[in-house]
Amino acid sequence: MKIILDAMGGDNAPMAAVQGALNAHRDSGYDIVLVGREEEIRKALIACGETALPTGMEIRDAREVVEICDDPATAFKRKKDSSLTVGLTMVKNGEGDAFVCAGSTGALLSGATLVTKRIRGIRRAAMAPVIPTASGGAVLCDCGATADCTPEYLLQFAFLGSFYAKRVMGIETPRVGLLNIGAEDSKGDALRLAAFPLLKAAGDAGHINFVGNVEANTAMMGGADVLVSDGFSGNIMLKSLEGVGKFLLQELKGMFFKSTPNKMAALIVKKDMKELKKKLDPSEVGGTPFLGVSKPVIKAHGSSDAKAFANAILRAAEYAESGFIADIEANIGYMKVQSEGEKM
Amino acid sequence: MKIILDAMGGDNAPMAAVQGALNAHRDSGYDIVLVGREEEIRKALIACGETALPTGMEIRDAREVVEICDDPATAFKRKKDSSLTVGLTMVKNGEGDAFVCAGSTGALLSGATLVTKRIRGIRRAAMAPVIPTASGGAVLCDCGATADCTPEYLLQFAFLGSFYAKRVMGIETPRVGLLNIGAEDSKGDALRLAAFPLLKAAGDAGHINFVGNVEANTAMMGGADVLVSDGFSGNIMLKSLEGVGKFLLQELKGMFFKSTPNKMAALIVKKDMKELKKKLDPSEVGGTPFLGVSKPVIKAHGSSDAKAFANAILRAAEYAESGFIADIEANIGYMKVQSEGEKM
Repeated sequence: MKIILDAMGGDNAPMAAVQGALNAHRDSGYDIVLVGREEEIRKALIACGETALPTGMEIRDAREVVEICDDPATAFKRKKDSSLTVGLTMVKNGEGDAFVCAGSTGALLSGATLVTKRIRGIRRAAMAPVIPTASGGAVLCDCGATADCTPEYLLQFAFLGSFYAKRVMGIETPRVGLLNIGAEDSKGDALRLAAFPLLKAAGDAGHINFVGNVEANTAMMGGADVLVSDGFSGNIMLKSLEGVGKFLLQELKGMFFKSTPNKMAALIVKKDMKELKKKLDPSEVGGTPFLGVSKPVIKAHGSSDAKAFANAILRAAEYAESGFIADIEANIGYMKVQSEGEKM
Repeated sequence: MKIILDAMGGDNAPMAAVQGALNAHRDSGYDIVLVGREEEIRKALIACGETALPTGMEIRDAREVVEICDDPATAFKRKKDSSLTVGLTMVKNGEGDAFVCAGSTGALLSGATLVTKRIRGIRRAAMAPVIPTASGGAVLCDCGATADCTPEYLLQFAFLGSFYAKRVMGIETPRVGLLNIGAEDSKGDALRLAAFPLLKAAGDAGHINFVGNVEANTAMMGGADVLVSDGFSGNIMLKSLEGVGKFLLQELKGMFFKSTPNKMAALIVKKDMKELKKKLDPSEVGGTPFLGVSKPVIKAHGSSDAKAFANAILRAAEYAESGFIADIEANIGYMKVQSEGEKM
């Protein structure tokens, strides 16, 4: 397993990326290629207490860096020698099994779509993180890659999410729900009303296990294994969970520091609280693959620390080994859709 | 202050409605009219330990009940003698200052729009609950009344939300944010990209204090006082908060019951945990007015218990007294919009 890592992407680059790669390499033995400005990567290595690269790790020099302020649609093209573009080209050419990047989501998505390309027949890529729920977790597909969706895109997201839950989460018959604002079949906005019969037909045909509309609160209590959503609403849900988690932990912290008895109580439950926090911590997940792209391209959180980078590398390897992409390619026949004004 | 209450609406009707009305009347002294099947209301009164109605409370007999399974668009019309339709007609005719109902949201919204009517010039009604945030709370407008929105509807929701925050929450210059999937001006789906310049222009004209795009996680940390959203995404956010709150409290409960020391810790923080839960409990809010409707019509949660009903009655009185509707009517000049294919 060889993972290509954009060492220059993310708020804490290159330090966090390099430290994360060292940790992941040590724990997993995976080969890792650090892509970026060689002198900066070497400086970070020294700061991490390493005088030389361990065997199995290498540097691929790339002189440019895609910045968050760059136009996402064109950055990967204009900056041909950026760590992002070089990394994508490497994974496209088979010089590694997966590419991990914590840089601009938009630039990475444009690049992944145009450099590594989508799987033939898939109309749009989706980001599909696993969100914590009362039944262990659910794939939220899409959560930001494709903000404006057609009903056909949602149908394909259902297929992508279902295979992902099967292959990567190990759920044999994932329950696929349409994220909606009511549980009854007739609920929702125009997009959901048009998508529902498509998902139902796919369920009736035995291609997915469609369980109908699922509201966001039911979803959190474990109502489905796959939540099908347009990228806009999915992102609102994902960021709401992030925000409320942070807000609640802040409130709990305030409560535990309020008085001496409370501080004692905090000491007692400290370890368990840490476990709970871990369960809800996005950096524990680390990275999210772009589903529908023909090669494993994994987006790590922009604020990734070393732990998050190490986790993203492990997720990338898991995804590359899962057989997900081969599954989609093998079953693309029934997934193909025709959208208005667009050709296959 | 006279509040009209649909005694037959909600999962726990009429018992919870009657008990809640008794409590609210005792605490506030407001006059309350219970609308519904008289014999069922009297039976509930006896079950609450009351042999007769206290002075200031009365019953208005209405023989029909709008059920959740009724078609929301026509239920209020077909069931003319339902507690919902009778209550709406009463508030329309000035037989009370506000109407509170925990029945079907869709039926209540259709009824409010067609019986009491919208404020002249307002295109769509919005539901705008106050969600708990790190800065105390934010109005989420809309969160389910209007699932499919035009940019012009979002502009009007910004006005409605801003006046609501001013009049009901007492915030002098509410920060109005467009709920979006990125903070930069250029972020979002087609709807947000079209709405942004309208909100910006309203801000530049001094009609609102527009603070730009706000992501859901920033919103939870207190990034805005008003969150402008289409009803679909707003509902996804609201239900996500509900779901994650429930999920987290369940996890915390599990943690506190895990071991004897943890149980001791739980005892110590019990009171503070209760406070925290209260802070996050939707029944503490009780009810949400339909903003844009010409009379105070308040939707209470379908699962309202007596406490939630009592709170909804207090919120209804607060809303009726706030001067919000008069404010909108006085300022409708700059709020009027023209939508494609529709006439003013």
